[in-house]
Amino acid sequence: MSQYDSVRAVGWHDNHLVLLDQRKLPHVEKYIQLFNAPDVAEAIANMVVRGAPAIGITAAYAMVLAARKAFNQYPQDWRKRLIADYDILMASRPTAINLKWALQRMMHEIDKVRDEDDPIETLLNFAKALHEDDIEANYRMGKLGSALIDTTHGVITHCNTGSLATGGYGTALGVIRSAYADQRIEHVYAGETRPWWQGSRLTAWELMKDKVPVHLMCDGAAAHLMQQKKASWVIVGADRIAANGDVANKIGTYGLAINARYHDVGFMVVAPTSTIDMDTSCGTDIPIEERPQDEVLFVGGQRIATPQVEAFNPTFDVTPADLVSVLVTEKGVVFSPGAEKIAKLMAA
Amino acid sequence: MSQYDSVRAVGWHDNHLVLLDQRKLPHVEKYIQLFNAPDVAEAIANMVVRGAPAIGITAAYAMVLAARKAFNQYPQDWRKRLIADYDILMASRPTAINLKWALQRMMHEIDKVRDEDDPIETLLNFAKALHEDDIEANYRMGKLGSALIDTTHGVITHCNTGSLATGGYGTALGVIRSAYADQRIEHVYAGETRPWWQGSRLTAWELMKDKVPVHLMCDGAAAHLMQQKKASWVIVGADRIAANGDVANKIGTYGLAINARYHDVGFMVVAPTSTIDMDTSCGTDIPIEERPQDEVLFVGGQRIATPQVEAFNPTFDVTPADLVSVLVTEKGVVFSPGAEKIAKLMAA
Repeated sequence: MSQYDSVRAVGWHDNHLVLLDQRKLPHVEKYIQLFNAPDVAEAIANMVVRGAPAIGITAAYAMVLAARKAFNQYPQDWRKRLIADYDILMASRPTAINLKWALQRMMHEIDKVRDEDDPIETLLNFAKALHEDDIEANYRMGKLGSALIDTTHGVITHCNTGSLATGGYGTALGVIRSAYADQRIEHVYAGETRPWWQGSRLTAWELMKDKVPVHLMCDGAAAHLMQQKKASWVIVGADRIAANGDVANKIGTYGLAINARYHDVGFMVVAPTSTIDMDTSCGTDIPIEERPQDEVLFVGGQRIATPQVEAFNPTFDVTPADLVSVLVTEKGVVFSPGAEKIAKLMAA
Repeated sequence: MSQYDSVRAVGWHDNHLVLLDQRKLPHVEKYIQLFNAPDVAEAIANMVVRGAPAIGITAAYAMVLAARKAFNQYPQDWRKRLIADYDILMASRPTAINLKWALQRMMHEIDKVRDEDDPIETLLNFAKALHEDDIEANYRMGKLGSALIDTTHGVITHCNTGSLATGGYGTALGVIRSAYADQRIEHVYAGETRPWWQGSRLTAWELMKDKVPVHLMCDGAAAHLMQQKKASWVIVGADRIAANGDVANKIGTYGLAINARYHDVGFMVVAPTSTIDMDTSCGTDIPIEERPQDEVLFVGGQRIATPQVEAFNPTFDVTPADLVSVLVTEKGVVFSPGAEKIAKLMAA
């Protein structure tokens, strides 16, 4: 691990998966041990782990657990027997494409194992490699993204895209870590990210831990900050990028992108190519998860909102490609992304 | 009171001022009795009462309390003795200009009282008249604003601009009440309005009480809603409008205005002319209050945010006039407001 990078939220220990329970942060740093795939699917659905790349890596490890159980119980028939777990994992969150990507990669690896062989070691090594590749991709994106930032006093980020949301280091937060290490950023403004407080609870926690200067703000304060010329980039991650460059990301991202364009502030999306879904032609085809209204109506078990009132709680929104100044991937940087440039990037 | 209008937050009872404590809503409906001006100033500063017009009316009543105390204690010298209370009230909140407007109106009335006369009855009647005029202005703005809305399924509002924020009925929420009564609006989307939850706690409470259909949403969801074509107007109030039409209002308003423009959604500002400050030439001259960071870091006494992290908490932002589709006042409607049109409105 490099400087400004001390957190890991997903890991394989001995014979099981360990997840840092992100629902309990920042006040409690509790790790959960998981021994079977349905429990992992539940942990993904309940947001013990969140962030598109972290969900993908978690699902890869869960397939090791699924294969082990199937092979131990049904050594003759294990390949068929793990399909149920695969399906449960696939359905755990709808928007992040990295989940599907990782599960399909694991399935492809499973197909290569001979029927008579114990698949566990091969699959575990493969899952660990996916995990390591993700961290490597983040380091690379950190360098590429940082190089785009002229020395500036502040940048805005939204949601959590750091070590907690990935294999480690982070996507957008990886760029911010790198840019801070390179002395290209002096200060980070993190949107608190209602309703799940990823900014207040997670991004602030990571950045405080790694001593990167950060201020929280309400999500609605970003435009004012841009008007005051306190930030020259908005840097965010993605949960899925369509083949035309449209970006699904945490609710609030789209409004930030519009505000950035209005103020001539750069809008940078940082995501590994595993987040790009060539099977989804444009943003309107991306399924947008709606989560329970109680996330909006309650805070810490206390009802904030007026009794009986209902809430509208879309978890993601879609930013059209034409609002993206630059897309940073581990394969390279794409300015003003669109279908053609993305196809070229993916073919490279 | 008309239909969809059952709440009053400021009132004079017997010999004192009564305020509905808006910090405790929606769960507790508690009224506070106030007998002297410094206590009222504290109530304004602590947001027992909030909303630019409601602050103005509250301050007018507080001047009655100030004059009564001065006259009772120093009958020869009462006019001079109430200046200290006037100053304390004037300093209680910096952004809402209605506070200054109401205090100056009261002072002007005080100047007209003869030295030997008991000023109380005259001043109380004047404060009550200001209060009634505010409600009348709101009814009139309600009609004017409603007439601008084509039949539509939804509108977006931000913060609280209803009976709680005014003498009664509301500014933006008055337009929404009228438009709902006129069957021009089917549904209201209220931004929760971090950090003080005016949307969740106050707007939802008023609208639920008056049976106007409302959904809450996180502030960051508004752009997504516009993209989904679920709203054709954003309707907000104002804390101060500069002579050139720039609008200071609750943090988040400016970003909404930019998003509205991007989606070709109308952006309507509803405010009585007492909110227009001809002495402030443009928005950059409006003082923007920063409130304690704890409003962002804590919810209901519980710290949400990461320990030690700091927050940036501007309470208002400034929307430039060129993003305002229409300004609705009790004196009439101004499309695409600017310095010339506003001067003409104020001279009318």
